Parts: sequence; structure tokens; C-alpha cells
Amino acid sequence: MSTPRPIITNDAAPAGGHYSQGTVYGGLIYVSGQLPTRPDGTRCGDLPFREQAALALQNVLAIVAAGGGRPETLLKVTVYIVGVEHWPEFNALYAERLGDAKPARAVIPVPRLNHGALVEIDAVAAVVGGGA
Amino acid sequence: MSTPRPIITNDAAPAGGHYSQGTVYGGLIYVSGQLPTRPDGTRCGDLPFREQAALALQNVLAIVAAGGGRPETLLKVTVYIVGVEHWPEFNALYAERLGDAKPARAVIPVPRLNHGALVEIDAVAAVVGGGA
Amino acid sequence: MSTPRPIITNDAAPAGGHYSQGTVYGGLIYVSGQLPTRPDGTRCGDLPFREQAALALQNVLAIVAAGGGRPETLLKVTVYIVGVEHWPEFNALYAERLGDAKPARAVIPVPRLNHGALVEIDAVAAVVGGGA
Repeated sequence: MSTPRPIITNDAAPAGGHYSQGTVYGGLIYVSGQLPTRPDGTRCGDLPFREQAALALQNVLAIVAAGGGRPETLLKVTVYIVGVEHWPEFNALYAERLGDAKPARAVIPVPRLNHGALVEIDAVAAVVGGGA
Repeated sequence: MSTPRPIITNDAAPAGGHYSQGTVYGGLIYVSGQLPTRPDGTRCGDLPFREQAALALQNVLAIVAAGGGRPETLLKVTVYIVGVEHWPEFNALYAERLGDAKPARAVIPVPRLNHGALVEIDAVAAVVGGGA
Repeated sequence: MSTPRPIITNDAAPAGGHYSQGTVYGGLIYVSGQLPTRPDGTRCGDLPFREQAALALQNVLAIVAAGGGRPETLLKVTVYIVGVEHWPEFNALYAERLGDAKPARAVIPVPRLNHGALVEIDAVAAVVGGGA
């Protein structure tokens, strides 16, 4: 089969536009940019940075899980943050949540994000037992 | 073979620097960041947002096609836009052009882009029938 | 095996947070965002742009090498630069260092980066002889 399988899960923020929460193809999982939005669709761009980061990361991990991956199979994570001063706080939370998993990562400061969010995260992960 | 095959097509904006329009390797197509530039090299950073988005997206789709893919085999699309207020307009155009295809996506607002463009798009897609 | 192999090399800047310099999985190498930091950890956000770009690119290439790749197996490079006016200077240096290799590329102007750097680069590359 040569078309990706879309990921659809109630455990992460619903897709808010013309995209899937993630796609699975060839043993890899591609996760859409996740904002601090709850699985019920509530946007949380007004919460403190740490809570926003926790929500966005939770969405990423829920989509990875729904695609057949785990934190340990994350390959690369890209993090866009508003306010480079939040970097240490982000890194601490991220370390807490990922534990032993240390995927490649890029953190890109941006001046603003959609819906006033302070953080957006996307990722590529491997399907457990998937092809490599 | 372990080196990527460069994509060269007259149907998309020519590479304006030291890069290929895209590369193909292991059944996957990597598309370079596409600006609103016509296949003849004319830069269109002065057009309205919708026309710029249409041009950039057309470049992406032409490069995917030249690499052996189709809109349905897009895995992940990353969109950089100047002016987060253009998000709904982008999403509407994108839905129109992609139809049933809903790849993973991230939209990143940025303060400016090269040549005054309002949008830049890159992507990863699968080669049709390619390896997975 | 379905977990990525972390890349650890003394030839590139050490990981400055909860991430690996890169990961290898399924014949692909994912390189973390590289700043102009020396392998000994010295940050060089105060050097002229060209020297910063050279350092960041050197880190990327060292991590690719440590993962089993080469400049010729780079598939996609993403470059974040502060000051779009540095684009030509970046392109010239990049052409010099990459030679015949012309991976897909996206250059994204951003207003600032971590530690006052003017450039950050990440990449995906193939392992030589690796699976495709």
C-alpha cells in the first residue's frame, strides 16, 4: 500500500483544519504540529507556559501511541516556542515526561503562534516493531 | 544505492541556490521549501496571500509528482506563514487543492520570509508503490 | 529493533539539554538542531555570521558522519537564520562545504535563536549502504 494511514484518536486535540492528527507509513509516524489544546477541543493559550507545554506534549505522545509508537520510538521532535526564556522550563518538563527517551530535537523560537499559544510541537516516530 | 536522487522538474520553481527542488530516497520524497515563485523563476511576493499560497503549493505538488508521488501520498506538510491571520484562508485553499488527502501538517507563523513572500511550504511524501 | 540508536560524538557540540545529538533508525539519520557551538561546548553567538554558519554546519556534518552518513547522503536540511540578509552568505558557504551534494533544503528566517545565535541547522540523512 502506498498511501499513508491517517491517525484518528480522541486522546489528543482534534484536527482543527484540513489535516490528520498524524499519518503512518512505512513504519514511521508523522505527528502534526500540536498546540496546547485539550482533547475536547478547548484551547489553552492563556495558561502558564508549563501547562501549555504539558498539553502540547501530551497530544504528541497520544498521537504517537495511536500510531503504534511509544516515547522510546520518537526519532525527532521539533518544538516552536514563543519566548526563548521558556527554554529551560520546557527542557525540564520534557525530560520529566520522556524519561530515558532522548530523540533528536530542535527548538525554534518564534514570535507568536496560532490562537495565542506559547508552544507548538511536531514529531516523527517509529512504529514499535515496525520495519527497521 | 545509498545516495538520494535529486528531483529536477520544469513544472516547479527552479532551485534558487545550492539545493535540489527535492530528493528521493528509500521510497520517500523530500521537498525543498517552496516560495510563491513561478516555474519560470518569477518571484511573486507582491501578489495577494491566496495567490501566493496557490503558487507555493503548486510547486510542492509538482515536485512530489516529479518524484513519483501524488497528493494522496503526502505524509507531512510544514507551512510557514507571515501573518497568522492568513491561517483560515490558507486552510481553505489547501483543502480545495488536496481534496481527500489529509497529511499531517504544521503551520508556523514567522515574521518574514525570503524575497518578501508571505508563505513557504515544504513536505515529505511517499513514492507511489514505493517500499511500504 | 524498533528503538532509535542515539548518536554520541565528540566531534560535534554536546547536547545541551534532554536530547541526543542525533538518532539513527531504519537507515535514516535525524540530526538535532545545531547552533554555532564548538565540540568543547563553547557557544559562539558573538562571531560573525559566516563563522557561526560554518560551526553549525560542521556540527551537522560531524553528527551525520557519526551516524554512518556522508554529505552526499543528506536528504533534507532545514536552516533557521536570524536576518534574511544573511541568505546569500549562507548559501555561498553551504555550497563550498557540500560540494556536489545538493539535498533538499528549506531556509526559514526567524527573529532570534537560543543563546543569541544567528543560525540553527537540522537535517535528515541516509546511512551509507543503508536499506534503500
